Amino acid sequence: MAVYTEVSDDEVEKFVGAYDIGEVIALKGIAEGVENSNYLLQTTQGTYILTLYEKRVAKADVPFFLALMDHLAAKGMPSPTPIRARDGKTLRELHKRPAAIISFLRGMWPKRILVTHCSQVGEALARLHLAVADFPMRRANALALPGWRQLYQSCQARADEVLPGLADELKRELDELAAQWPSGLPEGVIHADLFPDNVFFLGDKLSGLIDYYFACNEILAYDLGICLNAWCFETDSSFNATKARALVRGYKRARPVSAAEIAALPVLARGSALRFLLTRLYDWLHHPPGAFVKPKDPLEYLKKLRFHRSVNGTAAYGL
Amino acid sequence: MAVYTEVSDDEVEKFVGAYDIGEVIALKGIAEGVENSNYLLQTTQGTYILTLYEKRVAKADVPFFLALMDHLAAKGMPSPTPIRARDGKTLRELHKRPAAIISFLRGMWPKRILVTHCSQVGEALARLHLAVADFPMRRANALALPGWRQLYQSCQARADEVLPGLADELKRELDELAAQWPSGLPEGVIHADLFPDNVFFLGDKLSGLIDYYFACNEILAYDLGICLNAWCFETDSSFNATKARALVRGYKRARPVSAAEIAALPVLARGSALRFLLTRLYDWLHHPPGAFVKPKDPLEYLKKLRFHRSVNGTAAYGL
Repeated sequence: MAVYTEVSDDEVEKFVGAYDIGEVIALKGIAEGVENSNYLLQTTQGTYILTLYEKRVAKADVPFFLALMDHLAAKGMPSPTPIRARDGKTLRELHKRPAAIISFLRGMWPKRILVTHCSQVGEALARLHLAVADFPMRRANALALPGWRQLYQSCQARADEVLPGLADELKRELDELAAQWPSGLPEGVIHADLFPDNVFFLGDKLSGLIDYYFACNEILAYDLGICLNAWCFETDSSFNATKARALVRGYKRARPVSAAEIAALPVLARGSALRFLLTRLYDWLHHPPGAFVKPKDPLEYLKKLRFHRSVNGTAAYGL
Repeated sequence: MAVYTEVSDDEVEKFVGAYDIGEVIALKGIAEGVENSNYLLQTTQGTYILTLYEKRVAKADVPFFLALMDHLAAKGMPSPTPIRARDGKTLRELHKRPAAIISFLRGMWPKRILVTHCSQVGEALARLHLAVADFPMRRANALALPGWRQLYQSCQARADEVLPGLADELKRELDELAAQWPSGLPEGVIHADLFPDNVFFLGDKLSGLIDYYFACNEILAYDLGICLNAWCFETDSSFNATKARALVRGYKRARPVSAAEIAALPVLARGSALRFLLTRLYDWLHHPPGAFVKPKDPLEYLKKLRFHRSVNGTAAYGL
């Protein structure tokens, strides 16, 4: 649920007046996304998304995100295109916040994940990795090992309020992952947040990949590890190896994967589970009472983490 | 902010399949409205609102609301029209909840209220009162004096947590309003919640009246009292008599108002201020910690209530 900034009709009309996209006919806050304020903007020419970048997104990063979307759309990826105002700019200001209008993608995100979704997501993820190979900008991953350690330190004292023994378990994980983290694998710009609510389907066919606001330079196969967590666990926390196999096979259809990348998947998926566990734990412990956004359960990711820690090689992933 | 029920893509496609409105191409939860879950539904034929009626709306009342919207739209009022499925029904079921698809109205609600808005709202309100004169259904106002007394009783013990002395002040108000409440004034179906976020404008021109989910049979001029509270106070709680005059004059352009109705406005506006004060106070004291919807400040309505109590006749309203 996210509309943090209420913009007035006057402001929006003036803002949209700088683009060649017609007159505003409606603006509705969208109850999706947790980082920014998103509005569905309807004009006499069509439907768009108006995004106001809120404080969780660093202002200095916004040009990277918009250039990345521009690059992906130009390569034919089904991702939103930032719209240029008449002055040629995609990043402008509304209500004293960085703001952009991006194209609207058709489709709905799947609430019930099917094997075909996983297969198509895998392939789309590989295509995304190929499409960014010549993207010239870089953005460091703030949520890699050093960032995890910082999050851990902010949560350490109170982690056991959520589950007794959690602080110790997180500490051991950090140490083990630091020791086992792979090196020398192919790197590039990754999506880093390709959860089901960021993937649209029209009927059974993938129609859009959205929300590039965690994209960064990382090991490419780490993105697969994120998707294993995001797409292949059932609601009862059981792991669906059929979905995992479909995801990885789909990926391989578009981009060859080395044996070293496959062998690293358990530790990468484990690291990714720790990353979401730590951010959720942080939000859980630090969200103000009565806040707008309900924090997500961190322990869902502890279960996923323990699964990846327990596996013996990649057979458990159906590979 | 309101999407209480998450519906799956499969469910929505099946639901929409019962209508002649094309194929679903997108569905976005809307961050507006606090009683129901609202989605913006885009199909190959157009844009619609999909509403799921949540528990705060009594299931038995939904047919009244849908019939009222149908009646108003047929009379040419700029209100949403419930869409009929192929079986002729407007009220159906989705995810085990009463659900309806209604037409989408263009326009934006005004964040900054101008005198012209008040004038047009007054006239539209009067037209609404005329348009429902032959509407055959009835719905009692659950938030009239007896309902206020019930709300007071649920809040009495803890009201002073919000402001010392509040419980006593509310008790005196209830007694005085019960003694002074007018009788014999024209009655009919009123909107009962015509706040700025329920009125759309396209440019400077009123384009829509939405959200009929508090509509009920009441003294017609009580609706004007609600609008005096909703439209004529500035953010610093000062009362803008120019706006009030524009509102009442706008109303009079479409429906003649008797001297008795005008004379009753201060007590009706005072009652309406108490009604919103009590529901806000109830929500304030009873909302669960970490709830989705941030409760609104009840004391804003205490200031409005005191204003109406303090006035000496209708001159203070610019009349």
